[in-house]
Amino acid sequence: MRYTRETPLLLTPGPLSTPPAVREAMQIDWGSWDEPFRALNDQIRKQLLRVAQAENTHEVVPLQGSGTFAVEAMLSNFVPTDGKVLLLTNGAYGKRAVQITQRLGRSHIELETAQNTPPDIGAVAAALDTDKAITHVFTVHCETTSGILNPVEQIAELCRGRGVKLLVDSMSGFGALTIDPARYPFEAMAAGANKSLHGAPGLAFVLCEKQALAGAKGRSQSLSLDLFDQAEYMARTRQWRFTPPTHIVAALHAALENHASEGGAVARRASYQEKMDMLIDGLGALGIAPYLDAKVQSPIIAAFHCPAKDWFSFQDFYDRLADRGFVIYPGKLTDAETFRVGCIGDFGPDIMAQVVSAIGAVLEDMSGTMPNEKDPKAA
Amino acid sequence: MRYTRETPLLLTPGPLSTPPAVREAMQIDWGSWDEPFRALNDQIRKQLLRVAQAENTHEVVPLQGSGTFAVEAMLSNFVPTDGKVLLLTNGAYGKRAVQITQRLGRSHIELETAQNTPPDIGAVAAALDTDKAITHVFTVHCETTSGILNPVEQIAELCRGRGVKLLVDSMSGFGALTIDPARYPFEAMAAGANKSLHGAPGLAFVLCEKQALAGAKGRSQSLSLDLFDQAEYMARTRQWRFTPPTHIVAALHAALENHASEGGAVARRASYQEKMDMLIDGLGALGIAPYLDAKVQSPIIAAFHCPAKDWFSFQDFYDRLADRGFVIYPGKLTDAETFRVGCIGDFGPDIMAQVVSAIGAVLEDMSGTMPNEKDPKAA
Repeated sequence: MRYTRETPLLLTPGPLSTPPAVREAMQIDWGSWDEPFRALNDQIRKQLLRVAQAENTHEVVPLQGSGTFAVEAMLSNFVPTDGKVLLLTNGAYGKRAVQITQRLGRSHIELETAQNTPPDIGAVAAALDTDKAITHVFTVHCETTSGILNPVEQIAELCRGRGVKLLVDSMSGFGALTIDPARYPFEAMAAGANKSLHGAPGLAFVLCEKQALAGAKGRSQSLSLDLFDQAEYMARTRQWRFTPPTHIVAALHAALENHASEGGAVARRASYQEKMDMLIDGLGALGIAPYLDAKVQSPIIAAFHCPAKDWFSFQDFYDRLADRGFVIYPGKLTDAETFRVGCIGDFGPDIMAQVVSAIGAVLEDMSGTMPNEKDPKAA
Repeated sequence: MRYTRETPLLLTPGPLSTPPAVREAMQIDWGSWDEPFRALNDQIRKQLLRVAQAENTHEVVPLQGSGTFAVEAMLSNFVPTDGKVLLLTNGAYGKRAVQITQRLGRSHIELETAQNTPPDIGAVAAALDTDKAITHVFTVHCETTSGILNPVEQIAELCRGRGVKLLVDSMSGFGALTIDPARYPFEAMAAGANKSLHGAPGLAFVLCEKQALAGAKGRSQSLSLDLFDQAEYMARTRQWRFTPPTHIVAALHAALENHASEGGAVARRASYQEKMDMLIDGLGALGIAPYLDAKVQSPIIAAFHCPAKDWFSFQDFYDRLADRGFVIYPGKLTDAETFRVGCIGDFGPDIMAQVVSAIGAVLEDMSGTMPNEKDPKAA
């Protein structure tokens, strides 16, 4: 086993296990004003647009910080102060966008579905047809709270038909769950370096239609999160306005090279799907059921029902798996006791087989340590 | 020479050359929810408060992003919407705080001095005595535009005497230019990981008085930059609210260990001063004069007048030095043609001697390549 308690495999929605080339890239101290670093900025922008198939339609604006910073920047730069946004929510990240919109003082309505249920397309259409003040729809591509895959393509078609703009939080899926912007237009999409792209955390970005970006001038009340300013400065100088996370930029460049050499988004999605199938089948054989129906399960991360046994506690389960070198993620659902296992990150199906086997061994250990399981009379 | 064009020494105001242990720390992929990472969060908070001598007076709130994000967070979290801030400016970072304050819609006045001149303490006192609506004073500790050291201690005394709160941008100097908060109270101070602390860029932090932090609840219009929320969540969970830059957190921890083992802020300031003295003396011998008077020159970074010669261009000078493995920084002053050389980062006086010698050799090469310098008759 190559993973240990000290250097575990991360089976999480990110930060995740990066390829060696990504960590290697963080060994150089780049000068942020220096030509080699400017060239790196040019490259990651081109690479990101290529991954998104958006070279002809969008700009990409990198931003320092976590993914939430990019989601906030997207909402504050693209929803005008007199705009109104319809937020489709079915988990924590949708709820976070609601909170951001409230803070920003933008007019909004929330259309919530249960955490295991995608937005109802008919209800979205009805909402748009009823309230003509709505200028934007916001949705989360893969809601990692449950791992649900939301129907962004159908939502994009609805929006296009009604002249409403679409904003997508594609944080966890970008690089695997790509949407063709020529077929399914979106005004902006926020994503991050350290999820399906396998970079290091500390950098996010927003893809945005060129015209929308021009319209964002002066709109952001936050200087730090002003995407127009960031894009304008970068176009002019090939530098970041404020100190860039140089090591993280270099890491993203290496991650994007790796992404391309491994076959791009199509290959990455297929690789995740293979691991997800093994995971769901393997845990199923252990009596552990996934929270979601198969037809809405993304290949990014899955939530599983915790065994309803006296001997099961999540923390104990987590610690035992971590001792074997596998770090999983706690549940975040409000309507079920779950744990989550991610399929994203730099590891293959051979390792996923080890993960399933380790989960089986740990559950056996846990149930076996309870006296009443070993010997009912002793209890 | 151990520095090359590909892996140069960075003589900049940051990102700078980090110690090997800092880069080594970025080789591990940490799980952000995992106990070892939570312990790391506890440790950096303790370490930062220790560096600031502020264990008894302040909390520290780490924030994803660049230093500007922390400055914006400081202004938006601590200046109430009905407050008024007096901004003391003598360079680009003071001006940036003015811009942030404007965007935030906070009432403010700017008291500007020339870029080579610290704020006039009498004028600050007069401004505070004249305008009783002022609740806060903002100043930049070391303004890296020129490298000037502003008299934060005197400003702190003025503020205390009048019941006005002080906000300090100590981005570049924190870890070397420490201010004792027991003697010179400040409500908040923003600083970053990758300047005098020698960490990697992508993480900043705000030291804040505990009472002020409590008062900031619900004040930030930005969810991402809400310091109260960040602090409250971290105190409760020992985690970051949103994905942390895990590698950069680990790098900062290593940088802080290195900082302590080398003797803390006193030793670091002395080391910078030794290098700064060598730099100013060495360049002086080459006929290159510093922009600032010695009495206001910080040990962090110095601006030098560009030689007023036909053969001198900054870009050529920069490229030739970079080819020798030394990356300097362009000037940012609006009233003089300058270049800047930083003394911060992981290198000793032996290397500064090489830098001075390389600058001499490059200037000789540059002047020598001009025919009219080599042989006036040939021109």
